[in-house]
Amino acid sequence: MPLTFEILATDGEARLGRLTTAHGVVETPAFMPVGTLGAVKGVTPQELEAAGASIMLANLYHLALRPGIDAVERLGGLHAFTGWRRPILTDSGGFQVWSLGGLRKVDADGVTFRSHLDGSALRFTPEDVVRFQERIGVDVAMVLDECTAWPVERPAAAASWERTLEWARRARSAWRGGGGGGLFGIVQGSVYRDLRERAAREIAALDFDGYAIGGETERRTVVEWTAPALPADRPRYLMGVGYPADILHAVAQGVDLFDCVLPSRNARHGVLFTRQGTLKIKNAGFKDDPRPLDEECACPACARTSRAFLHHLFRCGELTAPVLATLHNERYYLDFMADLRQSIGLGASGFFRSP
Amino acid sequence: MPLTFEILATDGEARLGRLTTAHGVVETPAFMPVGTLGAVKGVTPQELEAAGASIMLANLYHLALRPGIDAVERLGGLHAFTGWRRPILTDSGGFQVWSLGGLRKVDADGVTFRSHLDGSALRFTPEDVVRFQERIGVDVAMVLDECTAWPVERPAAAASWERTLEWARRARSAWRGGGGGGLFGIVQGSVYRDLRERAAREIAALDFDGYAIGGETERRTVVEWTAPALPADRPRYLMGVGYPADILHAVAQGVDLFDCVLPSRNARHGVLFTRQGTLKIKNAGFKDDPRPLDEECACPACARTSRAFLHHLFRCGELTAPVLATLHNERYYLDFMADLRQSIGLGASGFFRSP
Repeated sequence: MPLTFEILATDGEARLGRLTTAHGVVETPAFMPVGTLGAVKGVTPQELEAAGASIMLANLYHLALRPGIDAVERLGGLHAFTGWRRPILTDSGGFQVWSLGGLRKVDADGVTFRSHLDGSALRFTPEDVVRFQERIGVDVAMVLDECTAWPVERPAAAASWERTLEWARRARSAWRGGGGGGLFGIVQGSVYRDLRERAAREIAALDFDGYAIGGETERRTVVEWTAPALPADRPRYLMGVGYPADILHAVAQGVDLFDCVLPSRNARHGVLFTRQGTLKIKNAGFKDDPRPLDEECACPACARTSRAFLHHLFRCGELTAPVLATLHNERYYLDFMADLRQSIGLGASGFFRSP
Repeated sequence: MPLTFEILATDGEARLGRLTTAHGVVETPAFMPVGTLGAVKGVTPQELEAAGASIMLANLYHLALRPGIDAVERLGGLHAFTGWRRPILTDSGGFQVWSLGGLRKVDADGVTFRSHLDGSALRFTPEDVVRFQERIGVDVAMVLDECTAWPVERPAAAASWERTLEWARRARSAWRGGGGGGLFGIVQGSVYRDLRERAAREIAALDFDGYAIGGETERRTVVEWTAPALPADRPRYLMGVGYPADILHAVAQGVDLFDCVLPSRNARHGVLFTRQGTLKIKNAGFKDDPRPLDEECACPACARTSRAFLHHLFRCGELTAPVLATLHNERYYLDFMADLRQSIGLGASGFFRSP
């Protein structure tokens, strides 16, 4: 079964959709918790399901280093390996390779880099990256892209886009789709509007199963230019975004999929999202606060414990602190998306607010 | 409702029992996971329940330092504070205070010690410790004892026991039992058989709701001397023990309650208990092992993932590694106790084996 996407309702540019893969259904707009190495840090697959996650993101670059693509394949693929039974999207590693700075060298054919762990040399070509994702059986595979550096002059941004487009063509040709997943193309083009619009047209012409918007700068503006230029009948994914308000903004431009490390990373630092705003739970003011983190939340922390208990666990450096906090923050994001989907279904997403 | 204990069946000296408190029923022999500061490290209260724990141990010394008895009381007691709704036993802190070494000074009236955290001075008398446990609403309170140093000559061991006995008398007098819990006395006496037997008689004469066996040395021998000398109709608790084989040995001597940090501490180090023996999951031999940790285990790790995945998570230093490992090890201990109870009920505990 190939990946399919249908739009159930629209509200302005916002869309209520259903993405279906061999591993299940994702109601969109959807948030993908980040399980870089196969698990959201501190969370079991069962707890992630219970929080309401319908799709998880894992990272091909990190998995290729540890435990290696061969190992994941031998162990039955990424679902069998991780115990996560619902759809999985893998980031192609383009962004991670780009982040390596001096440790990577890009040429026309691909990227050579040194492991951030042991310095060993590895090489990713666009074909490798497609093949790796097919071999480990992901539901949504991403093409290898070049994440354009910032700041960048227009000629360099255009040249970078030409390389990413060529790599996208090669990835599209290499994709066999046998495992029942889909392959997404990625729009780059930095902060240049006409370049972004051209990139959207050129990538759309390659007929991917979905389209991602990449880049690290001026995200809201870029989304406003790019999303409307992408095919209306395919899922749109804004990579690495973001705060709830940024997600809401992008949904209003017609974006369907999101991932971000914010809920889990902030949780580990004791920064908790709630419907009343953000709590820095280590602050002394929470020492005697008997209220749950968020009165309207049904996560394991809010169902049983108080701000005072989380404060205590964080102050004592207890392992249960980041666990409960992560369960809460992921649930907050997933509830936020569910509420947003309901608003779109009611034609009321214009009234939806993030705290 | 006071604490009650009934014996449902016996098999030799082994007993199948039922301990009932205001917060629920504990089938014995039972293992109490250790939640020193109110939570088993890395585990939510819901997951601990799901693992089959019917009672949790917390530590009065640690809670008195952080967040403080006043704070726990203001927050509605230890159950409301921690979100753990089933029975709770608190260790009196005697052992922790004793472990402080030079930071503590014992006199006839009690113990003065310096916080291991900030050096501030605190004082515990036998009456304080009872009162603290009443105020935070524990189900099973422990008397303050002196954990006799080792090695120790017989006269010093006897003198130490006299002090613990006097403290036990004072604790018994101070106990009001208003909250529906029970107070347990503690037998000390080091490795001297007649001293242990006398201690058991003397502490039994004070009519506690249950009796604990303390000490750090020669545990099996001490249990063989002490358990038969304790009142048959009251629960017997062997403090801080131990490996499954040690628990099995003690159950065969008529011990009903156990606590130990081994399952959680070993889990954090990647040492996993299974029905086939112990696995050091970080060892390279597990890199490609697709089997669950234990084929017969239904914990969240075994239900979904493999030895290879746990190996991967530990090698990567992922937070999910100790979480899954702790859920597994606690479940292993709790399943072990459930199997042992079944054997006692069948009159077959003599055939029960630990791996």
